[in-house]
Amino acid sequence: MKLGVLLYFLGGFLLFFSVALLLPLLIALWYHESIWWVFPVSAAVSASLGAILIFSIKSEEDLGYREGFAVVAFSWILAGAIGALPYILSGVLSPVDALFESVSGFTTTGSTVFEKLENLPRGLLFWRSLSQWLGGMGIIVLSLAILPFLGIGGAQLYQAEVPGLVKDRLTPRIQDTARILWSVYVLFTLVETLLLLLGGLSPYEAISHAFTTMATGGFSTRTASIGAFDSAYIDYVVTFFMFLAGTNFALHYRALKGDLKVYLQDEEFRFYFMVTLLATLLCLIFTLPKYGLISAFRYGTFQVVSIMTTTGYGTADYDAWPQILRLMMVILMCFGGMAGSTGGGVKQVRMLLFFRFIKIQFRKLLHPRAVETLKYQGERVPQEVIQSLFGFLALYLLIFLAASFIVCAQGVDLETGVSAVAATLNNIGPGLAKVGPTQNFAHLPDLSKLVLTFCMLAGRLELFPMMIILTRSYWKDVKGPNFRF
Amino acid sequence: MKLGVLLYFLGGFLLFFSVALLLPLLIALWYHESIWWVFPVSAAVSASLGAILIFSIKSEEDLGYREGFAVVAFSWILAGAIGALPYILSGVLSPVDALFESVSGFTTTGSTVFEKLENLPRGLLFWRSLSQWLGGMGIIVLSLAILPFLGIGGAQLYQAEVPGLVKDRLTPRIQDTARILWSVYVLFTLVETLLLLLGGLSPYEAISHAFTTMATGGFSTRTASIGAFDSAYIDYVVTFFMFLAGTNFALHYRALKGDLKVYLQDEEFRFYFMVTLLATLLCLIFTLPKYGLISAFRYGTFQVVSIMTTTGYGTADYDAWPQILRLMMVILMCFGGMAGSTGGGVKQVRMLLFFRFIKIQFRKLLHPRAVETLKYQGERVPQEVIQSLFGFLALYLLIFLAASFIVCAQGVDLETGVSAVAATLNNIGPGLAKVGPTQNFAHLPDLSKLVLTFCMLAGRLELFPMMIILTRSYWKDVKGPNFRF
Repeated sequence: MKLGVLLYFLGGFLLFFSVALLLPLLIALWYHESIWWVFPVSAAVSASLGAILIFSIKSEEDLGYREGFAVVAFSWILAGAIGALPYILSGVLSPVDALFESVSGFTTTGSTVFEKLENLPRGLLFWRSLSQWLGGMGIIVLSLAILPFLGIGGAQLYQAEVPGLVKDRLTPRIQDTARILWSVYVLFTLVETLLLLLGGLSPYEAISHAFTTMATGGFSTRTASIGAFDSAYIDYVVTFFMFLAGTNFALHYRALKGDLKVYLQDEEFRFYFMVTLLATLLCLIFTLPKYGLISAFRYGTFQVVSIMTTTGYGTADYDAWPQILRLMMVILMCFGGMAGSTGGGVKQVRMLLFFRFIKIQFRKLLHPRAVETLKYQGERVPQEVIQSLFGFLALYLLIFLAASFIVCAQGVDLETGVSAVAATLNNIGPGLAKVGPTQNFAHLPDLSKLVLTFCMLAGRLELFPMMIILTRSYWKDVKGPNFRF
Repeated sequence: MKLGVLLYFLGGFLLFFSVALLLPLLIALWYHESIWWVFPVSAAVSASLGAILIFSIKSEEDLGYREGFAVVAFSWILAGAIGALPYILSGVLSPVDALFESVSGFTTTGSTVFEKLENLPRGLLFWRSLSQWLGGMGIIVLSLAILPFLGIGGAQLYQAEVPGLVKDRLTPRIQDTARILWSVYVLFTLVETLLLLLGGLSPYEAISHAFTTMATGGFSTRTASIGAFDSAYIDYVVTFFMFLAGTNFALHYRALKGDLKVYLQDEEFRFYFMVTLLATLLCLIFTLPKYGLISAFRYGTFQVVSIMTTTGYGTADYDAWPQILRLMMVILMCFGGMAGSTGGGVKQVRMLLFFRFIKIQFRKLLHPRAVETLKYQGERVPQEVIQSLFGFLALYLLIFLAASFIVCAQGVDLETGVSAVAATLNNIGPGLAKVGPTQNFAHLPDLSKLVLTFCMLAGRLELFPMMIILTRSYWKDVKGPNFRF
């Protein structure tokens, strides 16, 4: 563990980050908001911290495997912490609430402590949406390039470990991969902004919602979320782009290059599509008496896609739907988006392999002498990938239970506590009961908010990076930095 | 799949079963109960069905591997169905309720549809307790001898697959194994009966409760369960024997032969003991203000051991305890007893391996080149055992969710529905909310009761037998029976 190279990298990250903090300044100035100064001040803090690190530390070495975990974890922690400054400086949130809201942004979760959004400065709301969009950018590169290099993440199936799928890595170098995927991300954001403008949204609201759709973040500028616009056109546009945002961006890139068949050839995509279809159908059946066919379809598709892709927008209060749909929503929360998308959760590919694994266990019992192998995209899935799949699921359950435990220990009721953990660990946003889609997280005790903040980070970074930096053996042989002076 | 040998075996089972149905007749006659006739009639039904099968079918072949699943599944289904006759014939329950209660007995679950027990005929209550005791007898042999032969079950770790542990199989032949384990079971039942008699219980109540303690069943003759006796002595006696019933019976046998160290040498036992200790400590901390130290310890140990060993007796309403303890109870429900005990649930050994597996995944990420192996009792756990461990957990989750889905689809609220599935799939008894320890299952819709009945059977038989007989390919090449005439 070379501390020097880690700190040097984080210094560079903070310098870049300070630029992002200046963007909401433009909005604040345009609307003549008195809190405009919080952005340059926060940017200055970020920039000076970054400059101190960069200029005081000599970094001769490259980032190695071991440093990878810390770089990933601390980039997001720093983004969350520095990103909380505007909320604190403008006096709208306490430090704990500000950290919660900011991490909820950068992890593209979308859980909020704000009870009402309309009376907040627009500069601040723009920073909130922008934080999700930037978080989404980070996630795409993280999940398709960095995590597989660390031997974890859903997309590792697309990687070297399944030889036939290397082609999905697009290009071998991380910078090239990032550039290609980001261009798709930016393109989709622009197209959605345009379509939302056509639907009558103001430029400020159109861009804000395009930001948080493509990030599967779910922050809105309205307290009533997308429901505030009460437009079927807006609903369907947003549903469509949420679905795209929950799809592997490597597939989008190849589709944009002309090969539209890639979607149907991808087993994970087919699974993702089928689960969406089935869940929508269940919604349709059970909300038909309440809404009638047309509205049931509109609200059903929206809520299913919003929750499953872990966006978390709302146009209807699913917490008031029949009990089976409430349960379905909690289960959908765990499915999440495809690997390589901006969606959180367990990821569709892991769920798919999970089901196939059960099927194979059955076959083994029925035919003890037959050789049964788990296949994905026609290739045999190696033992190590299966092991790491179950390692992920096991750790996921463990964190889920431990976090629920701490939250409920503070007197939060079971449905609220458990669904709050599900909503943050899977980076969704709203849960059930007192953190349901018409509620918020403000009323929870501070310690619960900190635990949920940890859940957002752990879930977003595919569990292992956040957990590994908490183990003692990771920090055992730290090599201190070489200072320039 | 040879149908002849299966039917022949089930015929023999029904003949034996008819004898068991005559035992409660003695109690009914002693108390001059008008419904005494339901027992000989039920016994006659069982005996004639059995006789028809035995005398009409020629069975020249031995039970094979493939038939094993069906024998296990149908023995329990038949016991549940025929065992329901006394409830139906005496007019106290509808057929669905009677099936629920009877299966709850033979699977040693302990969930009940009776609102009040004191006004029921004692012969019927004795049958209820006896059904659990017989179920417990079946389970010990099933889990230590039959399931490992089928390649499933928690105890497979003690078997041939981990070579160093073969000694735990006691003797190679199933009949000998059964005789040895049953003698321990009978001995413990007698000792507990004696201790309960010393505590002032009537012989009828002492034997009934000894039956359902040793089976980790939890049926009581009182509506208020063990709490009705309101005696610290009774509470501690029952707690102690519940703990013994949740322990691997092979360990008890070796301990009775003089080697008391076996308990401490067993990693699963140490884990089981530590979990009990930790859970009791948590109870103590959070119920201290409510009960004071002495009562908190008494109620804490009792409720923790009762729920974790999947017995389900109650002396306090844990559903009214602080939220963290309600959540803890649901989690404890999943732990269950040790493999080879009469306890249900996931089993302690699986949980232990689950935690070790997560630890190893961490080590692998921290030291990618180091060779890390999962060990149990000093031996390397083979890949196939790890795979079947995760196969079990995956199927467990799947059944859990599917059952919760169907129950909630009928309008049962989330906490009630999910905890009812947890309580039946793990063979506990009571759940939370409307099926909490002071409630019962009578008010649930019939379809929910049937789904929960299935859960009891699936959970009790370690999932696979009940699921496999539902697959089409299991019944693909059925060889019909040869009739004698």
